[in-house]
Amino acid sequence: MRASVIGATGFAGVELVRLLLGHPQAELAMITSESSTGELLTKMYPHLKGRLDKELTSMRDMQAIAKVSDVIFIALPHGHAMKIAKELKNENVKIIDLGGDYRFKDPKVFEQWYKVEHVDPTTQAVYGLVELYRDRVKGAKLVANPGCYTTASILARVPLLKEKLISTEGIVVDSKSGTTGAGRSLKLGSLYESVNESFKAYGVASHRHTPEIEQAYEDFAGEPVVIQFTPHLLPVDRGIYSTCYAELKEGVTDAQVAGAFESMYGKEYFVRLLGKGVPPELKNTRASNYVDIGWEIDRRTNRVIVMSALDNLVKGAAGQAVQNMNVMFGLPEQMGLEALPVYP
Amino acid sequence: MRASVIGATGFAGVELVRLLLGHPQAELAMITSESSTGELLTKMYPHLKGRLDKELTSMRDMQAIAKVSDVIFIALPHGHAMKIAKELKNENVKIIDLGGDYRFKDPKVFEQWYKVEHVDPTTQAVYGLVELYRDRVKGAKLVANPGCYTTASILARVPLLKEKLISTEGIVVDSKSGTTGAGRSLKLGSLYESVNESFKAYGVASHRHTPEIEQAYEDFAGEPVVIQFTPHLLPVDRGIYSTCYAELKEGVTDAQVAGAFESMYGKEYFVRLLGKGVPPELKNTRASNYVDIGWEIDRRTNRVIVMSALDNLVKGAAGQAVQNMNVMFGLPEQMGLEALPVYP
Amino acid sequence: MRASVIGATGFAGVELVRLLLGHPQAELAMITSESSTGELLTKMYPHLKGRLDKELTSMRDMQAIAKVSDVIFIALPHGHAMKIAKELKNENVKIIDLGGDYRFKDPKVFEQWYKVEHVDPTTQAVYGLVELYRDRVKGAKLVANPGCYTTASILARVPLLKEKLISTEGIVVDSKSGTTGAGRSLKLGSLYESVNESFKAYGVASHRHTPEIEQAYEDFAGEPVVIQFTPHLLPVDRGIYSTCYAELKEGVTDAQVAGAFESMYGKEYFVRLLGKGVPPELKNTRASNYVDIGWEIDRRTNRVIVMSALDNLVKGAAGQAVQNMNVMFGLPEQMGLEALPVYP
Amino acid sequence: MRASVIGATGFAGVELVRLLLGHPQAELAMITSESSTGELLTKMYPHLKGRLDKELTSMRDMQAIAKVSDVIFIALPHGHAMKIAKELKNENVKIIDLGGDYRFKDPKVFEQWYKVEHVDPTTQAVYGLVELYRDRVKGAKLVANPGCYTTASILARVPLLKEKLISTEGIVVDSKSGTTGAGRSLKLGSLYESVNESFKAYGVASHRHTPEIEQAYEDFAGEPVVIQFTPHLLPVDRGIYSTCYAELKEGVTDAQVAGAFESMYGKEYFVRLLGKGVPPELKNTRASNYVDIGWEIDRRTNRVIVMSALDNLVKGAAGQAVQNMNVMFGLPEQMGLEALPVYP
Repeated sequence: MRASVIGATGFAGVELVRLLLGHPQAELAMITSESSTGELLTKMYPHLKGRLDKELTSMRDMQAIAKVSDVIFIALPHGHAMKIAKELKNENVKIIDLGGDYRFKDPKVFEQWYKVEHVDPTTQAVYGLVELYRDRVKGAKLVANPGCYTTASILARVPLLKEKLISTEGIVVDSKSGTTGAGRSLKLGSLYESVNESFKAYGVASHRHTPEIEQAYEDFAGEPVVIQFTPHLLPVDRGIYSTCYAELKEGVTDAQVAGAFESMYGKEYFVRLLGKGVPPELKNTRASNYVDIGWEIDRRTNRVIVMSALDNLVKGAAGQAVQNMNVMFGLPEQMGLEALPVYP
Repeated sequence: MRASVIGATGFAGVELVRLLLGHPQAELAMITSESSTGELLTKMYPHLKGRLDKELTSMRDMQAIAKVSDVIFIALPHGHAMKIAKELKNENVKIIDLGGDYRFKDPKVFEQWYKVEHVDPTTQAVYGLVELYRDRVKGAKLVANPGCYTTASILARVPLLKEKLISTEGIVVDSKSGTTGAGRSLKLGSLYESVNESFKAYGVASHRHTPEIEQAYEDFAGEPVVIQFTPHLLPVDRGIYSTCYAELKEGVTDAQVAGAFESMYGKEYFVRLLGKGVPPELKNTRASNYVDIGWEIDRRTNRVIVMSALDNLVKGAAGQAVQNMNVMFGLPEQMGLEALPVYP
Repeated sequence: MRASVIGATGFAGVELVRLLLGHPQAELAMITSESSTGELLTKMYPHLKGRLDKELTSMRDMQAIAKVSDVIFIALPHGHAMKIAKELKNENVKIIDLGGDYRFKDPKVFEQWYKVEHVDPTTQAVYGLVELYRDRVKGAKLVANPGCYTTASILARVPLLKEKLISTEGIVVDSKSGTTGAGRSLKLGSLYESVNESFKAYGVASHRHTPEIEQAYEDFAGEPVVIQFTPHLLPVDRGIYSTCYAELKEGVTDAQVAGAFESMYGKEYFVRLLGKGVPPELKNTRASNYVDIGWEIDRRTNRVIVMSALDNLVKGAAGQAVQNMNVMFGLPEQMGLEALPVYP
Repeated sequence: MRASVIGATGFAGVELVRLLLGHPQAELAMITSESSTGELLTKMYPHLKGRLDKELTSMRDMQAIAKVSDVIFIALPHGHAMKIAKELKNENVKIIDLGGDYRFKDPKVFEQWYKVEHVDPTTQAVYGLVELYRDRVKGAKLVANPGCYTTASILARVPLLKEKLISTEGIVVDSKSGTTGAGRSLKLGSLYESVNESFKAYGVASHRHTPEIEQAYEDFAGEPVVIQFTPHLLPVDRGIYSTCYAELKEGVTDAQVAGAFESMYGKEYFVRLLGKGVPPELKNTRASNYVDIGWEIDRRTNRVIVMSALDNLVKGAAGQAVQNMNVMFGLPEQMGLEALPVYP
């Protein structure tokens, strides 16, 4: 399987390269970067040295790239993928977009939250959260890979919504992300001194992952859901931690809550259920494609608090994309993704 | 003013020593440690070297310590202070307890959450959150210094409860603490490798600061309040960050919210209001007695999200204790506490 | 190949388990811990959850463990392995010791620096630095896996000693280690607060890796070498960085230095030569079995400064042990060790 | 005393502002920034909020700034100060330059290492290492504040050179710096992800602090000294750690070494001698003006290893500058600099 990575010098892009280099069935076709065209990727990322001897090319001629690829990963900021996918609509190549362009059923939602016009509004992609939409991913030609916050938040809550164990009102999602979630741009706020020994909320009441989470919640709840989502910046390289608050419906038992998680994820390779009373720890998922989920039930407040942890660059981006690729091409879902978390 | 520190080798205790050494009107009388009696404090904490040449003594003879002290700070785990304060009831010495023993109006609440019998249930201490209870602190002989999480959470919410701008139902307090908040005990979970590059929730639905926060909220709301409080462990040395969610009452304007904060804290030296749309950053308060407060109003969900940040060892413990001392003895409130935050 | 790990709950032991779980030819036979006998390893190390369902046993009956194992890894503090290896001398099992017991040709050197009597002084193990002693490792039954500091320091210098390009006098090795190098013991110095935002030297002029480095240097120099070795503690989880200073012999050219490295490591899978003027970065080797080596030549001082970086838990311990196992059993040397560094 | 800070938005500049705001005799006159002229400094650095309400101005009219200042601190990259000092030569204002322009007796050395022509080569400044040159600083009008690496390295070695206890040959200075030492510029290497969990050497055999250290060594040794200096980047905000190797002259005793330090620094407020066998820890000096010095003597190698630690922004930059100001104006040397280290 020949795979190309458009935008290989961002954190998600280079993580894709790392995973694809370790994938037994994948072969790296083209890797692109507009700012470093012609350079070796290992010059910018020497951790790959010794295993990759490939120059970065330009993405200007996407047709040519499509011709030598079975699958194209797009790891660019939003706004690019919709142009590329539109252009390649009739090419015999599958596309997995790691950005936001195709994540919404309704392109108007995209336009409203991302403040950009959608140039390919009639194309429907499959939302690539494999654990929830595996069958659709199987036949997909264009997959919208979910965001990092959204993967953690959706997986943590959907079983309870599906089984109607929680109220759809008053949901609060308090999330925390490692710094790679912010990308690799040169901003004062990304300097070591700005992040280290600090912590802050950002994008309060306005973060673009909000409607993406709501869309999935609604899909399983079968009714409109409005959530309160707050992202924060953690002084760690990798990781998303979501603490999700919801009101339990009357009479719901501990066993029902556990059962909802068990029946949905009991056989999932990449979801590890820690059970009631066991909060996940971020580090236990580092550099792996696992999501760890634990929960607590507070009878004083009648709330269930679900906590989830994952690596934003793997299950929250590149790993999930490879998982999608595996499913799209009929390969074993965990192929190339079996690496255990690196601890400590 | 002769000040003694009972339990000087914990993180809060040694921070008290640091602050008292820099206080123009304080003189360090006795410092105690049961496990290191007879040793120099600078042996365990060489950062104080050159400015302190004092041996640690035992706290066994509290009467003797009381005789040479105008004020005694108790920086021990809960359960000790109630014995000490009871014993010293008739001594001419003021006591500031940094633990939980005297923080509750109703000693039964203490017993229920701390699982210990209260040996001095009839004594009422003043709750030493100076910004809220300054007048009571002035005349106090026994002050219960608030907890670190509670200081951040209470100050962030009380103006809105007082002005009845938010509902008392559905309040969520999602808090994050630096590791010094967990004290200086030898546990696997406190090792560098356990904390670094990680993040986790703990004490979910069961943390002892919950009733302390509720007590203050009720005091200002004038009605019962039940909150959802979740603490998390941050990979930083110092700091508390609280993200507090509450439902706005109908018709409440942005200006009313700002006004509530302004009228309560506008003249406070140690509270810095960042305003709407400006989340605080933890590091901006480090090593200082400041609390930074910012907020956001989400008209989609009709919620106000208030965020507060402080240094758990200063405003969350030792600094607040010194602030209480200043007020109790009629000194300028900020004396010895003017140090600006250390950034970066 | 059935592999057992004696001492599976230390950092090196659990890293061995992680690597063996991902090794295509290895099967985990027994894992031991004296303090947690009967418990699941995943209870203490939940990052392995989902992939390991094995109880820790005791190492009291080593004969029984030997019977079900083709290879035994000993990941215990020094002093244990010599007893185990002695006891299993006639068993049909290969042993790889990650401790210091068998690293010295002369057991008296061990006794002098480790302050313990050697109970098996007549047994000679093979020193398992594969890049230098591959042929010996092939036939070995007992391998002494090198220490973390030593691997970094030896590999960085040996080519220059072998080619007699540097003086054997005045060699300084200034090394820095991540905190996992100190093991997982409960000491005040290992708390997050002690390590984070700090740095210190330790074991100055007395660290046990000194004679181990000297032994290898002498082996290649063909004459006695006395070095100055100083370890330091870095606030990172993993990694060893060595900055090695030596005097160039008269007339030595840049090309000769590069040639020495090239001829020795040019075909090595796990050694990456960065060349002159390119210092390695610790993070580029994280979670991998690579050693990165760069150097600089200072004509002002007539010195060559060689810098090496590796992950102390992988190439500095568990990864190197698996590399030894591969060579001992005739497997491809990199089997199970191909994981690329995790960056960032 | 009216003090102005030229270049107030760099890390050293803003640290100067923090220290001056806490200085009982200093009043902040002008603070400048060319890129943020007209803005409040607290906008970029909110940790100062509540205590400073001052706009940044331009440094274009230095004459005007001089007229309202008794002392001007220049916290700019090298190359600026020589123009400013030249322009203000006849003004009645003292100047303290935190850059490299005036640190060398011989302007040619500056030109050679900094690759810039010196525009004011005939002006001799006083080298502001107060502990070594206090008398000269007293009368100075223009002080060259030493660099961070140099302060740590010079203070650690000079007593032994002065007493002729060590050889002037073969000196190695292996230094490690926190990231603020690299300034606040937007480079990929300064991103959180580049620094966190990593470590690297840089500027090997070419760092500009080399000739500055040599100059001071020669001054006390009375003969030429060529050193090997290697800086490294530490994943901490603040701090310099220097490990200095030198050969002991024949017959030198432990007591002589201790005596040399004692006689030179025994009465110094800001130098804390930890003694033989006690390496300093970086964190014990954080946010203070202290230098901690410890040493070890290795009779195997006949070397003395001296280790020093300090905060690069305080004793390595802004604190030392204030110390110079105090001496220049006849104030108590420690005024405004008594803050104890912040630990943990």
